[in-house]
Parts: sequence; C-alpha cells; structure tokens
Amino acid sequence: MSAIDDLVTELSRLPTIGRKSALRLTYHLLRQPEEQGRRIAAALVALAEKVRPCAECFNFAEAERCAFCTDPRRDRSVVCVVEEASDIPAIERTGEYRGLYHVLGGRLAPLDGVGPSDLTVAALVTRVTAGGMREVIVATNPKLEGEATALYLQEQLRPSGVTVSRLARGLPVGGDLEYADGVTIVQALAARRAM
Amino acid sequence: MSAIDDLVTELSRLPTIGRKSALRLTYHLLRQPEEQGRRIAAALVALAEKVRPCAECFNFAEAERCAFCTDPRRDRSVVCVVEEASDIPAIERTGEYRGLYHVLGGRLAPLDGVGPSDLTVAALVTRVTAGGMREVIVATNPKLEGEATALYLQEQLRPSGVTVSRLARGLPVGGDLEYADGVTIVQALAARRAM
Repeated sequence: MSAIDDLVTELSRLPTIGRKSALRLTYHLLRQPEEQGRRIAAALVALAEKVRPCAECFNFAEAERCAFCTDPRRDRSVVCVVEEASDIPAIERTGEYRGLYHVLGGRLAPLDGVGPSDLTVAALVTRVTAGGMREVIVATNPKLEGEATALYLQEQLRPSGVTVSRLARGLPVGGDLEYADGVTIVQALAARRAM
Repeated sequence: MSAIDDLVTELSRLPTIGRKSALRLTYHLLRQPEEQGRRIAAALVALAEKVRPCAECFNFAEAERCAFCTDPRRDRSVVCVVEEASDIPAIERTGEYRGLYHVLGGRLAPLDGVGPSDLTVAALVTRVTAGGMREVIVATNPKLEGEATALYLQEQLRPSGVTVSRLARGLPVGGDLEYADGVTIVQALAARRAM
C-alpha cells in the first residue's frame, strides 16, 4: 500500500521518529478527518516557501529581515551571538534580554571540517564594526567547541573595540552540588562572587 | 513568525508529539534541504487523497478493494476479525496467516456509546453468510471490551454455521511468570495443554 508506506518512510527520516512511531502517526492520521493531514502538509509547504535566513542576523525570517531585527523596541546596541536559531527561544523565554541576535549557523569544529568561513563570522564583524554597537554577548554552547568559537569571536571582534562578554558558567539553579560535574564546579569556584 | 508557529501547532496536535518535540522537528526541517519538508507534505496529501476503506474488509485501501482482498494467493475461506486496520501488520509480520481480514473499526463500548451499528458487524455477517467461509478467527484485543465484542460476534455468526475461533490467551512467550498478572495466569491455567 504505497501511500501509507511512503508517509511512514518520510516520517521515519525525522529525528526521534522511528519506523514504529511513524506507523503509529500514519494510522492516527488515517483515523482523523482528512483535513488534519492536509493542514500539516500546508504548514510544511508554507515553511519551505516562506522561511529564509534574515539578511541581518541569519535568524529564520519570513521577510528580508527577521522579527527581532525589524522590532523598533529592541535595543540595537547589544547583540547576542548564538550557534543556531533554535537557541533563541530559550533566551527569549527568560524575558530578560531586549537586544538583537546573530546566528552563527554552527560552531567551529576543525575535526568536522567546519571553519570560520562556514559560519556567519564575517557578517558579525561587519555588523559590529558598522558602529552603534555597545556589547556583543557570546552565547555559544558551554562545550569545548562552543568555547573555542567564543575565543575566536573575541579575537575577531577585538579591533572593533566593542565589549565582548560571555554567558556565565556555574552551577545550574536548582541543581545538586552532589551531582554537578567537576568541570562545572571548577568554573563555579573560579567565578565565585562575594555575598 | 507565523509559518514556524503554524507548523509547530499542527505537529503538536499529533499523539506523542508535544510542543517541544514539534519545535525540535520544525527546526530540524529548517536545517534540511527544503525538499524534505515538501516530500512529507506530498506524502500527507497523497494519504488523504488515495487511502479509503476497502469495500470488502474495511482495511485501508488505495483502490476499491485492499491488497489482501485482491490477492489471489490469500485463502478466502478464513477471515481474521481485528478492531483496527493498524492491528493487521502485527499479524502479517508473523508470516503464519494467509487468510483475509475484517476491520471492525473499534470494539463494543456501551459506556462510550459505541454499539454494533458503529462497527462493521453487519458487513461481516453478510460476508460470512454469503458462503465459501470455513472459519472466522476473532482477534479483538484481550481486554474486557474486546472480549465482549468477541462474544457478541460469536452470537451474530452462530446462524451461519461457520466455525468461530478466538486467539489463545496465556503467558506471553519470553515473559516472566513472576511478573505475569493474575488474570493471565488464570487463563493460562484454564487453557493448559497436555505435554
């Protein structure tokens, strides 16, 4: 039965969806009004048609520039650099950040053949040196490659004279000291603050 | 960003996919070549357009009759009655059954307002009394409502004179007696066989 098999095959290409889940989802859709599957299909096509990288910050956008870059209420003097556009919602959810973003499109990973030219580093340097910037907050992931990327960005941005900062490392709030890894404890000790 | 939000909303309507998974799947698709999302969309539309209930057994079909009902190698004198079309692959995977199927479209559940007229019972009786049938194997789920449905089918099919059988209940192969529930053990005892 090819229509069923086709959908199962397509769905099982998605991460975290194995063949069994794909089959279950397909049978679920077959029990729903036809409209439900068609709505998902339309949303997928709209995604492919409308979403593209923002010309300024490389976040996903449905116009030339994204919702942050075109929002007059955002502080244009601060830019937060993230590896992927999918990191932005985590920062937005805090409600504490009102600046702009810059999506690198990954992190430096020489072993995987990812160098600076594969990322949007040059565009970031251009943005920052264009003037009006006060601070660049580097929010790459707190892992080896994210750290290396942060250091590289710091080097590249030094000539601009703009402050480059990094998200603090330390114990996660609500975490257990007993279960924290050693590296995190070392960082938390080194960055300890007077009370 | 409406195209992204729309897809997240549509995907999170699916069972086992929460808002977070839907967001992760959407961002995954945004990182893939546009073609991947379009292929899933096309498969969804094809499913909605092509798949309908088989006129004979109510399994999913892409023509008037399904792949089993039109297969000349299947034994047309035996019919296996299942609650849902999604139960068929489990039986087919055994490779031990070569007869036809009949999909009830659920099980009798008076508390949920599901009566015989909501299922394909009448069509089953018509099929069986039309002649040429040797046996009806009832493979409804081994739960209270599945059992009640099986008993009801047995009643309805008695006038046809065709043998009505039921899948055996007992300990699942590879299971642990220690962890088996009491009802299963009672059934396994009652249906014990001489060695």
